Amino acid sequence: MATGTLTTERILEATEEMLRRHGAAKATVVDVARALGVSHGTVYRHFRTKAELREAVTKRWLDRTSQALSGIVSGTEEPEAKLRHWLAGLFAAKQHKAGDDPELFATYTVLTGENSGVVDRHIADLTGQLTAIIQEGVTRGEFTAPDPASTSRAVFDATNRFHDPAYAGEWSKPGIEPAFTAVVDLVLRGLRR
Amino acid sequence: MATGTLTTERILEATEEMLRRHGAAKATVVDVARALGVSHGTVYRHFRTKAELREAVTKRWLDRTSQALSGIVSGTEEPEAKLRHWLAGLFAAKQHKAGDDPELFATYTVLTGENSGVVDRHIADLTGQLTAIIQEGVTRGEFTAPDPASTSRAVFDATNRFHDPAYAGEWSKPGIEPAFTAVVDLVLRGLRR
Repeated sequence: MATGTLTTERILEATEEMLRRHGAAKATVVDVARALGVSHGTVYRHFRTKAELREAVTKRWLDRTSQALSGIVSGTEEPEAKLRHWLAGLFAAKQHKAGDDPELFATYTVLTGENSGVVDRHIADLTGQLTAIIQEGVTRGEFTAPDPASTSRAVFDATNRFHDPAYAGEWSKPGIEPAFTAVVDLVLRGLRR
Repeated sequence: MATGTLTTERILEATEEMLRRHGAAKATVVDVARALGVSHGTVYRHFRTKAELREAVTKRWLDRTSQALSGIVSGTEEPEAKLRHWLAGLFAAKQHKAGDDPELFATYTVLTGENSGVVDRHIADLTGQLTAIIQEGVTRGEFTAPDPASTSRAVFDATNRFHDPAYAGEWSKPGIEPAFTAVVDLVLRGLRR
């Protein structure tokens, strides 16, 4: 990368490319600087440590999912349709991540294991989106939830077979779609006023 | 074991003791025969291969949970109390297995990974018990479930954070009991007529 400005985003793209090709072991500041054709001092101006770089690339990977879903939260559907759509969107996003590039998914599973703070904040983002949908349903008199934040965590937990990477091996198996629908139907019946 | 009859149960007890002391690697027919002070030919009359022995000891470990729960299914509680009691019983049994003897639990987690057929039959046992409770609730006009077998699998999936060994690390953390109650409340509201 002899020309252009070295942005944080460009470094993270190169890091992800590194992860895709070589797995988690090679994603260090020095490896990424070499791939970009810059000195590692240049990369260190953006990320002071290997840990910081790996945390940032993991956050970027997780944020892609929450950003895609945030459009559903702010949309105009009825709360029940919105919640169904959001849970299906989360499941589809995870299925794609796991199925389209299984090696990169496995690598990110290693990185999420190393960066539990990033994962906790990601789960807080997602359950925050769920809380907004549930709160909207309560306000409109369609859902019952004495404490929408605790209910949103219950909905998130109840659907974890369809978003927790621990279950990725099941997401392409026959029968997974009806199993997903059965859980979502049960959860929605539980929320209805 | 110079005296007494060598029963299948005695062999499985010795195998579990072997697993407890030495982990999964040492639980072979020859190791177990040595521990019992008998020839391995004697053990082979009960288990023809190491795989068969390991499958049987895994089944015995899983069956302990389903046997403990079956008394709840045949009890006289109301369906809703029965379901709540059954889910709490499953969670408590798993918490005890994981917490009381973590090494043995880890060893059995390896063995369940090797014996997916045994695990599938165990899940079928458990969801069969759930189906009986849900069917009873439907018959008594307390639950709604067009297809109790599919609903029971949905209830099992929705509560997996509280029984799947993949989550064992979370079972002793603060906040796990209210999280369990929130999911069970949501599921029960979803079942109520």
